[in-house]
Amino acid sequence: MIPPKELLDFLRTKNEFIITTHISPDGDGLGSSIALSQALSELGKKTILLCKDAVPPQCRFLPGHEKFHSFTDIQNLNSFENFIFVDCNDVDRIGDKSQVSSLDIRHAAVIDHHETGRAFGDVKWVVPESAATGLMIYYLIKALDLEISEDMAVNLYAAIATDTGNFRYENTSPMVFRVADELTRLGAKPHLAYRELFESWSQGRFELFVRVLNTLDKHDGIGTIVVTRKMLDETGTSPDDTEHFVEFPRIMKDLDISILLREIDANNYKLSLRSKEDINVATIAQSFGGGGHKNAAGCRIKADLETAKAQVLSQVKLLAKG
Amino acid sequence: MIPPKELLDFLRTKNEFIITTHISPDGDGLGSSIALSQALSELGKKTILLCKDAVPPQCRFLPGHEKFHSFTDIQNLNSFENFIFVDCNDVDRIGDKSQVSSLDIRHAAVIDHHETGRAFGDVKWVVPESAATGLMIYYLIKALDLEISEDMAVNLYAAIATDTGNFRYENTSPMVFRVADELTRLGAKPHLAYRELFESWSQGRFELFVRVLNTLDKHDGIGTIVVTRKMLDETGTSPDDTEHFVEFPRIMKDLDISILLREIDANNYKLSLRSKEDINVATIAQSFGGGGHKNAAGCRIKADLETAKAQVLSQVKLLAKG
Repeated sequence: MIPPKELLDFLRTKNEFIITTHISPDGDGLGSSIALSQALSELGKKTILLCKDAVPPQCRFLPGHEKFHSFTDIQNLNSFENFIFVDCNDVDRIGDKSQVSSLDIRHAAVIDHHETGRAFGDVKWVVPESAATGLMIYYLIKALDLEISEDMAVNLYAAIATDTGNFRYENTSPMVFRVADELTRLGAKPHLAYRELFESWSQGRFELFVRVLNTLDKHDGIGTIVVTRKMLDETGTSPDDTEHFVEFPRIMKDLDISILLREIDANNYKLSLRSKEDINVATIAQSFGGGGHKNAAGCRIKADLETAKAQVLSQVKLLAKG
Repeated sequence: MIPPKELLDFLRTKNEFIITTHISPDGDGLGSSIALSQALSELGKKTILLCKDAVPPQCRFLPGHEKFHSFTDIQNLNSFENFIFVDCNDVDRIGDKSQVSSLDIRHAAVIDHHETGRAFGDVKWVVPESAATGLMIYYLIKALDLEISEDMAVNLYAAIATDTGNFRYENTSPMVFRVADELTRLGAKPHLAYRELFESWSQGRFELFVRVLNTLDKHDGIGTIVVTRKMLDETGTSPDDTEHFVEFPRIMKDLDISILLREIDANNYKLSLRSKEDINVATIAQSFGGGGHKNAAGCRIKADLETAKAQVLSQVKLLAKG
């Protein structure tokens, strides 16, 4: 992957940057941002790391994570006019409207691997084929003729491990392994990264997981699981703790579609849908006013639990399973 | 990794081989054996794949797995006298005494990554530092100046993914990634291998898993889970289905030791112990007459469930946690 000349010029000619990533940040957004900041420091540049939300617990092993600022911290730094959007291609994805409008964004570079139709950004480097933004930052650091330090390696490895589901998603390309090889030679520790990123659940989250698995209902290759507000209350957890739960039932060989129904309030459910291979759940989500990708989609249904389940199951039978 | 000249000579000068692996075979033993057999075919050699036990469901995507024979199938093939033990360094690990004694083992090569004090084998290549036997077979095929075919790549990738826990165990070295890079370029598909190896549970196994998680008991950083014969009966599963269950509770950040107690018969439990980092569970297993490694060990306790639990917990407090 070769970064565009405009991006290299932007990074080389400007001296001060605010590097920012999306709300609800993950290992790819955070690891990529920190590694880029560390690389730019090597070029003698001044950088500020900005994220609306706090670094989540599973990312607090990233060396340099403590350098992230919230909008409150940086409100007086309006002298900064060069922005780099990392793992994010939309100005509205970095914070609330009022927060964004407090920034003086004169120049904005976008480095991202998410598909976008948005025109946002003066300098854009968007590579949807890239498994992670971390991979792009790796090639960017190389293109800037910089050495990758051990800290950068740990950050970039975490970015790549996050967005490939630790080398199990379809985006796990030979390039992913080639870069992981170098990053581990430079000091990244796969087992430690795995433990931090994927095995740092709270006891409450574990208890919630067990309760949710107990709700599994299987119908003809379709599994549904349920999260109620009561379960969250009783385990002292938040909706963020349900992340990835919907993927788990797919561990069963004969299950093609997994659906998580999460109660938002009375008679109002948020649905997450996951499918294997050729089964399209985006069309199902769309039929309820939601959206997503072929194998991962979401929507809302305003109904009681049994009705919501029945509605989504009948749509699945109609649309996804022919 | 460079295979010894004696091994290359053995493979080059002999013409017929029985390739065998350990009982209860896994992705590393099977994938490595099949890839080696495919490579030797390229050299014009005749090979027979032998395993006491059937290929387990999660390995039935390995191209060539159907070529494995059981002892019954090959009992009349006593013309074969050259044996290659793959992922196995002990003749007693390939079958029952009567089965082993039916073989005419004149020459035995051992290719394995398990530590051993045994002298078994005329030609030995044992590399405990290797993450998987599959890695060794990869370098062996290279040393034989053969091309790695797509089928060999799929088999070797599965071997490596199995023994590194899909790149999450401490043995995930730069070399592992370097080889995974090449194997995916040659046609291995990481997401398909992951699904087959790690996500092909039966519904019964899933139900068993949920029941077992419901038994979690936490004491001061130590988690215990229990499998009873009743649970196996009611879910139509076998002890093999409990593989890896003991690892799951470690997903909790504050859990250092995970112990699975599986009922063998009345007042007789098989214990599996897992620990994080510096905590040594081998000493605990040894104190009950068992054994294992620092972070993974096992033993048996003849007592009722509550007594067995209390005994192991008091040993943990005494030995592992200082």
